[in-house]
Amino acid sequence: MHNFSAGPAALPRAVLERAKTELLDWQGRGCSVMEVSHRSAAFVELAERTEQKLRELLGVSDEFSVLFLQGGATLQFSMVPMNLANGANADYLITGVWSRKALAAAGKIGPARSVTRSETEGSMSTTLDPRHWELDPGAAYLHITPNETIDGVEWFDEPPLVAVPVVADMSSNILSRPINVDRYGLIYAGAQKNLGPSGITVVIIKNSLLQRSGDQLPDSMSYAVQSAKQSMLNTPPTFAWYLVELVLDWIAQQGGVGAMADRNRRKAQLLYGAIDGSGLYASAVPADYRSRMNAVFSLRDESLNTAFLSQAEQAGLIGLKGHRSVGGFRASLYNAVEYSSVEALVAFMQEFERSQA
Amino acid sequence: MHNFSAGPAALPRAVLERAKTELLDWQGRGCSVMEVSHRSAAFVELAERTEQKLRELLGVSDEFSVLFLQGGATLQFSMVPMNLANGANADYLITGVWSRKALAAAGKIGPARSVTRSETEGSMSTTLDPRHWELDPGAAYLHITPNETIDGVEWFDEPPLVAVPVVADMSSNILSRPINVDRYGLIYAGAQKNLGPSGITVVIIKNSLLQRSGDQLPDSMSYAVQSAKQSMLNTPPTFAWYLVELVLDWIAQQGGVGAMADRNRRKAQLLYGAIDGSGLYASAVPADYRSRMNAVFSLRDESLNTAFLSQAEQAGLIGLKGHRSVGGFRASLYNAVEYSSVEALVAFMQEFERSQA
Repeated sequence: MHNFSAGPAALPRAVLERAKTELLDWQGRGCSVMEVSHRSAAFVELAERTEQKLRELLGVSDEFSVLFLQGGATLQFSMVPMNLANGANADYLITGVWSRKALAAAGKIGPARSVTRSETEGSMSTTLDPRHWELDPGAAYLHITPNETIDGVEWFDEPPLVAVPVVADMSSNILSRPINVDRYGLIYAGAQKNLGPSGITVVIIKNSLLQRSGDQLPDSMSYAVQSAKQSMLNTPPTFAWYLVELVLDWIAQQGGVGAMADRNRRKAQLLYGAIDGSGLYASAVPADYRSRMNAVFSLRDESLNTAFLSQAEQAGLIGLKGHRSVGGFRASLYNAVEYSSVEALVAFMQEFERSQA
Repeated sequence: MHNFSAGPAALPRAVLERAKTELLDWQGRGCSVMEVSHRSAAFVELAERTEQKLRELLGVSDEFSVLFLQGGATLQFSMVPMNLANGANADYLITGVWSRKALAAAGKIGPARSVTRSETEGSMSTTLDPRHWELDPGAAYLHITPNETIDGVEWFDEPPLVAVPVVADMSSNILSRPINVDRYGLIYAGAQKNLGPSGITVVIIKNSLLQRSGDQLPDSMSYAVQSAKQSMLNTPPTFAWYLVELVLDWIAQQGGVGAMADRNRRKAQLLYGAIDGSGLYASAVPADYRSRMNAVFSLRDESLNTAFLSQAEQAGLIGLKGHRSVGGFRASLYNAVEYSSVEALVAFMQEFERSQA
């Protein structure tokens, strides 16, 4: 079975096998990690280790707090402006469906706008060129979405140096390659693509920004309170947290985010090469911006869509159906997807194309 | 091992064993339920089955929507007034630590007040007597906390008929006994005591109250939006949801909430009987209000506290340390705690008392 789901997505087999082994007996305690108090010494140590491992893998300095929250990136769409904006305008760089959703959610909290003249016009190279942005020097922050899972576009450069903190939704590409965390004010990521199961969300926030959280925010929505409480204002999703630690261990064993980046580049090259070398498959994304996490493609003969999907599933290739809003196909190639799975996908695609000749 | 943790708490052994068996291969799909898209037919069916099973066990009519959310009861402390109050006053019955926290959170959203003259004065029987309440006929709702986990008090009666919808935090006693859902406007419960692991929260809300959710609420905080999206506005905590279904199956196999109530009553009688029959142990809670979910007790000779706890742990009795705000001891007796575990606890307590003689 080869799992190309966009999220929840494939988890490293070794992680699931370890979780299975200790599901009823964690650390020899005679019970599951799910049954242990989050305030017990054993779980608090797990939480601290997990934070430390994330800091080491991603290079997060002491100038940042690391939070483990609930609600997914969607709740962050609201928490970011609630905590950081305080009535000021917020700038958004629109690169696809998810950045548009983030902007719409911010617009319910306070003033927020796109920094490009039109949300839809222009090429990706224009959109990503800071010379074309109309930045508000008084903005609370600039929000970017470095990988757009539905559009299949990824921005590989670090954000430019701007006058305001950069907030990045890295739900779909965190830990897929090295980044310079110091270039960001806040990074958030739902776990269910590269970090673990759904139900836990990582927030990396510069400590100086914690001061912006107003006292009148609900405690559970306040970065300042969550930071002061070590993400344990209330009962956290303990099993998801435990799995995140196991995933971080697995990434470290693979050689860290540098090794992940090499592997992800090779996986993407293999798949996009097969698409470009075929007469049946097509990618609408310019080569420089093709996501290494989500390869979106279509069949030049759409009448073959149903056959492609059903034969792929019969071949053990699952999760390839494109997002309902754009159709076509999508192969998500997150960290846990093996190179051999991409080989199996490419072999199937070539065989399917030959069978149509 | 006997687990008396207050939450996250013991899960039924059969549930964990089944989860272990299919952790890497759910429904013969060759992958974990954690790795499956929440929008796949297989997971949507799981979600629908889970809702249906909860409706059957608890007797939830079509007049109510059932939501599966994130953030725990603590996020509900804010979501309830955000969705239901719209600037109107909200009434709170204060019975202990958690209802006070709920009132404090509501006070950040809008006007909210206690319906008893003093939050601290008076006996439990006075507090729970509606003749002593000062209800606001214009209140958006009346909030109650039928079981207080820290104080160890439980209110076994259905709430009285009042002019406004009753909102109940049933995090710690949902599914522990039959209730008449029609007496409530909204019931919420974090899962990690009687329903499943931490990280998922059930909300049962009367459909007529969904209309109160204003359009300007963040989508993820709006009951109306979450209901319209079948709790899948964004990626839900899929593994926790899966475990909730298994726990509901287990409760049904035990005979439903009636059988749970019988078992929980027997467990509580055994433990409180041992406390009352001893010279060492004491419960400060009047007999009529002693929680069947959380038995809070102390040692008359507090110098023995450390020895009691360490010897209990050596005997495989874990999670007995009282909440840090009140000290002493607490044995949580949620659905999944076996009668034999309470027998083991009582035998240990009696042996410990004898050894001090």
